[in-house]
Amino acid sequence: MKDLSTQLAILTDSVAEIVPLDAFKVKLATAIETQTPLRIKFGADPSRPDLHLGHTVVLRKLRQFQDCGHHVDFIIGDFTASIGDPTGRNKTRPPLTAADIAAYSETYQAQVFQILDPKKTTVHYNSHWLGALSQTDLIRWLSTVTVQQLLARDDFTKRYHSQVPIHLHECLYPVLQAYDSVHVRADIECGGTDQKFNLLLARDFQKTADQPQQAVLMMPILEGLDGEKKMSKSLGNAIGITDTPADMFGKIMSIADPLMFRYYALLTDWSSKRIDDLRQAIESEATHPMDAKKQLAHLIVTERYDTAAADTAHAQFE
Amino acid sequence: MKDLSTQLAILTDSVAEIVPLDAFKVKLATAIETQTPLRIKFGADPSRPDLHLGHTVVLRKLRQFQDCGHHVDFIIGDFTASIGDPTGRNKTRPPLTAADIAAYSETYQAQVFQILDPKKTTVHYNSHWLGALSQTDLIRWLSTVTVQQLLARDDFTKRYHSQVPIHLHECLYPVLQAYDSVHVRADIECGGTDQKFNLLLARDFQKTADQPQQAVLMMPILEGLDGEKKMSKSLGNAIGITDTPADMFGKIMSIADPLMFRYYALLTDWSSKRIDDLRQAIESEATHPMDAKKQLAHLIVTERYDTAAADTAHAQFE
Repeated sequence: MKDLSTQLAILTDSVAEIVPLDAFKVKLATAIETQTPLRIKFGADPSRPDLHLGHTVVLRKLRQFQDCGHHVDFIIGDFTASIGDPTGRNKTRPPLTAADIAAYSETYQAQVFQILDPKKTTVHYNSHWLGALSQTDLIRWLSTVTVQQLLARDDFTKRYHSQVPIHLHECLYPVLQAYDSVHVRADIECGGTDQKFNLLLARDFQKTADQPQQAVLMMPILEGLDGEKKMSKSLGNAIGITDTPADMFGKIMSIADPLMFRYYALLTDWSSKRIDDLRQAIESEATHPMDAKKQLAHLIVTERYDTAAADTAHAQFE
Repeated sequence: MKDLSTQLAILTDSVAEIVPLDAFKVKLATAIETQTPLRIKFGADPSRPDLHLGHTVVLRKLRQFQDCGHHVDFIIGDFTASIGDPTGRNKTRPPLTAADIAAYSETYQAQVFQILDPKKTTVHYNSHWLGALSQTDLIRWLSTVTVQQLLARDDFTKRYHSQVPIHLHECLYPVLQAYDSVHVRADIECGGTDQKFNLLLARDFQKTADQPQQAVLMMPILEGLDGEKKMSKSLGNAIGITDTPADMFGKIMSIADPLMFRYYALLTDWSSKRIDDLRQAIESEATHPMDAKKQLAHLIVTERYDTAAADTAHAQFE
């Protein structure tokens, strides 16, 4: 395992928030001292199997954990996927059949393992334990959460006050997700900042279950090509991880200059220090922004394919 | 079966609200025409097995339905009783063991069948169907209810705005109770006005399940001996249905005069017309209020025991 200061530098770089930071540091130090890999939880919704670079922000961080010697518990949320959104309102969450889920999970894993190290990953399907959870146990877990807590969640607050219906089953999903952490005894959970409530709820659940509480590491949400909205297939501002090298290169070249630094931070292994140096070089006109962007596109295409593919894409672009 | 106008007169007298009244009348008319008894649902919480006269307000109405030729589905809520209130906050809802529930249910039934006709009653334990409800089905039912709907419930609105925690499992209980109506295919459900939300939610559930919707008949909440607060053992203002004839007689004699008419309406079979006549007789001093109260006490003790017991209690009181 890498030493503590190296791990801390890599793992905390470009992170939005770590809660609680002290406990996170202690966990890392203990893992190194005892040479026991930490269990890093990551939950995935298999009903959206086509990944784009926005999804890779968290996945790349998970890979950094693996490269530091830790282990990822990759939880496929097949239990809720089989239910979907029964209100039919949520088109991104249609109920999936067992065959759908199997197929989607395979596609999903094929893509995820382009980034994660399969040797340091355990894949779980949460239907294995959620399907076996009794109504009584479910009700006991529900009793530990209040409506007030839930309505304090950003998106729920907005919907509540603007009279957009919040259905009761939606209140259940964070509870089930938090219970996953109890089941796998996660040391750390990674997710986007939009998952903050759910990630922190898992800490409460682990406390109730008399387990050590996970630390939570939240990554920023990546903007799409427009530089404003969250990257999303349905908004047409996404770079798919299965896009061709030429498409990927061209799309990255199309972004506005300020977004470039954000992509360097969240889609490459460049340190914040190195990105700051680049920014200064551009500001002092020592480096042309177009060259810096080509370098970014080359780095990203190389990581997803290889140097030869990046060279070809670069040549095609010129 | 009694004819429609007789049934309507008896069944709607002293009722707080019937929703929807038109459907209620149609159901009665159809039952009489086809000589098919209506199924009247009544749900009971076995964790409070000691009944007082407040509980008999709804039970007496159910008995009137039976006397008109209808059938009562008496549902013992053993499923939620076995869970209780996991927060431990609610002392009236401790979790009960299977043995507790069996004992409490027996006590409860012994008391209930002092009022209901056992030949026209089916006793159900809702654990039979709720225990078998899958998580998937539960989640589908939850998806039909919104947080906004739930928070519109009187007690929840108050608690939400005064920051008194509402736990998520409490949101589940109305859903389970509404599902009971689907399971027994209730034609009518009786309850107190404090149950309005749950009683009406069952109508929504039956609609979702493509069943005819139950009509809901709500009885007023009976005031205790103080004439102000709801009758309740814990407030010390209750008349237990197992109180001795002398205690029962004495307690009734202790109430303030205005409360007497309320007790006549809700605890005897006197019609509103007859009670109005009595009120006028008292106002015109043709009848002494003390005599009217003795008559009330005599009626109530006779119903719970017999005429001889009432006579003795009356004699002891003088």
